[in-house]
Amino acid sequence: VAAPSARGTLTYSEAGVDLPLKREALAQLLGRVRYRPPPSHGRPVPLAGHYAGLVKIGRETLALTTDTVGTKVILAEQLGLWEPIGQDLVAANVNDLAAVGARPAGLVDVISCRRPDAAVFRQIGTGMARGLRLAQCALLGGETATVPDLVRNFDVGGTALGFFPRGRSPVTGQRIQPGDVVLGVPSTGFQTNGFTLIRRLLLEHQVDLHSRRSGSPLPLGIELLRGSRIYVPASEALASHAGTTGFAHITGGGVRNLTRLHPKVAFVLNQWPDPEGIFRWLADLGGIPDEELYQTFNMGIGFVIVLRPRAVEAARRALARAGVPDAVPVGYVERGVGVHLPKHGLRYDEYD
Amino acid sequence: VAAPSARGTLTYSEAGVDLPLKREALAQLLGRVRYRPPPSHGRPVPLAGHYAGLVKIGRETLALTTDTVGTKVILAEQLGLWEPIGQDLVAANVNDLAAVGARPAGLVDVISCRRPDAAVFRQIGTGMARGLRLAQCALLGGETATVPDLVRNFDVGGTALGFFPRGRSPVTGQRIQPGDVVLGVPSTGFQTNGFTLIRRLLLEHQVDLHSRRSGSPLPLGIELLRGSRIYVPASEALASHAGTTGFAHITGGGVRNLTRLHPKVAFVLNQWPDPEGIFRWLADLGGIPDEELYQTFNMGIGFVIVLRPRAVEAARRALARAGVPDAVPVGYVERGVGVHLPKHGLRYDEYD
Repeated sequence: VAAPSARGTLTYSEAGVDLPLKREALAQLLGRVRYRPPPSHGRPVPLAGHYAGLVKIGRETLALTTDTVGTKVILAEQLGLWEPIGQDLVAANVNDLAAVGARPAGLVDVISCRRPDAAVFRQIGTGMARGLRLAQCALLGGETATVPDLVRNFDVGGTALGFFPRGRSPVTGQRIQPGDVVLGVPSTGFQTNGFTLIRRLLLEHQVDLHSRRSGSPLPLGIELLRGSRIYVPASEALASHAGTTGFAHITGGGVRNLTRLHPKVAFVLNQWPDPEGIFRWLADLGGIPDEELYQTFNMGIGFVIVLRPRAVEAARRALARAGVPDAVPVGYVERGVGVHLPKHGLRYDEYD
Repeated sequence: VAAPSARGTLTYSEAGVDLPLKREALAQLLGRVRYRPPPSHGRPVPLAGHYAGLVKIGRETLALTTDTVGTKVILAEQLGLWEPIGQDLVAANVNDLAAVGARPAGLVDVISCRRPDAAVFRQIGTGMARGLRLAQCALLGGETATVPDLVRNFDVGGTALGFFPRGRSPVTGQRIQPGDVVLGVPSTGFQTNGFTLIRRLLLEHQVDLHSRRSGSPLPLGIELLRGSRIYVPASEALASHAGTTGFAHITGGGVRNLTRLHPKVAFVLNQWPDPEGIFRWLADLGGIPDEELYQTFNMGIGFVIVLRPRAVEAARRALARAGVPDAVPVGYVERGVGVHLPKHGLRYDEYD
């Protein structure tokens, strides 16, 4: 782990997450895996820019996403509060399905642990149940690995399987064009991204997780741990509509996630709401520059919807009916490339 | 971790894997996850006794399995040899699909690591490619989590998606009846199970992984690390035949895995081959009693096939054509319960 930079602030890389190293390692792995099975064993569907993998089996197109909760579990451990982690485990996976318009059909969980703990597992189960209910998804199985020599305490992840109901095609972003409107669905906090940096800041500033920030009735630990919102209802409300051109789950990489949707348009986020609450607090705590904030955290918007302008009003009504009344306009698409935040003078041309 | 038992031998539990604790924790988790989604979100298919979870989507029945390589990665690290781990990651998952007769259609991998390492990832990729080719399965995606505060070095797992080609039903074991014949497909070593105990024995007896056991041209480390055999060709050769009544992937739990197939028959393994090579060596090294050996390791047979007697000859021909010429009779089914090894005077009535 590198020392903080000269200007006294921490970047994600300085907090111990080295993205170029990861990119190179992954390129080496993928460079070796060139095997393509015969069509009788399923037909993979190429899909750039998304975390879901697609495969056709018979008449069905299936989507598979896998993700872990990451180092957020360390906060859960400090507070003895594991329900949010159970919900996060579901959310991290079904939200990546939602981002291609796939409907979740099943989840499997993986818990690698030093030693199983009934009280922890019960809380994780409660959170998973909540997440699965919100995503309307079944638990199909799972794995508990007792591996005391591999993990420090608990490492929690899973895989979700989704499909496309009759008449629905994957929502890939390929049809996005200048003039499209960008809506945002508010997040409930940091979801499961950026926690290596967050924990580093908490430690450096000796933050008491049981204290409250000004204006909040909740202890900081509870706010930071809050379970991820499930964006499946938003996706389900719109994925079958012709006017819907793209979805993005705003995960690690922040607003740069939008660049993965379409390489040859520019997303102008001129109405992205100013960060409030816990986002503002963390930014102030760490003196983190805007550039780093918006490329690392979801900054208050966890799911983005791209629409034809004529589809916006009907979409907002459909979202409200689906229990998502709080989607707000955050910007528009124009000719160009990358993601622009004109209020902050920021511009990102690629994902990483 | 408990001390070795009075008789100077180690059991799996004494080596740090506490199964009752795991069972209780898992019961707590599953007790909380009672949500059942509406049928329009996929219809889970109840399936007792298998690691695969099934869900119906439209006309297709999909199978999902998730598993990790576990602590075998620590041996890989000691030897700097990761290719077997890549193959194991595929095998652990597709072999659980093979055990219900599902054809693999896609895999996603998860690598949680302290720090990505290009050389390690390249080797894992090479092993994965080999496993995927043997299983005729595509890589659909994956996740690399850089979580230095969660894992000691590398934790490697994945999830596989399978399906049932037109005309094939899941092979569940429910149709098994007295008189059925049990065949075994030889394993290539310990696969990915029992390594917490194996490593404990290696340490206790200060075994040099670069040394050779009598009769082997290979260093012990290489023998212990050898990548798991892929049993998909065996399953594919027989899963669509009416005379095939059950499959079992012999993983942690050893021959007890058979009890999961059918609760009301007895499996008499009177022809299970005597353990040879690395199995015999480990048993002698640790002075491990037969009871512990057969309930922990695969003891030379990694995949079991249960057949109607009239189907055996055609099955062996089909296996040979599919590149599995080495399946051998290992026993038969009779009235009763559990798994019997008459040569060793052993009897297991349940899985755990």
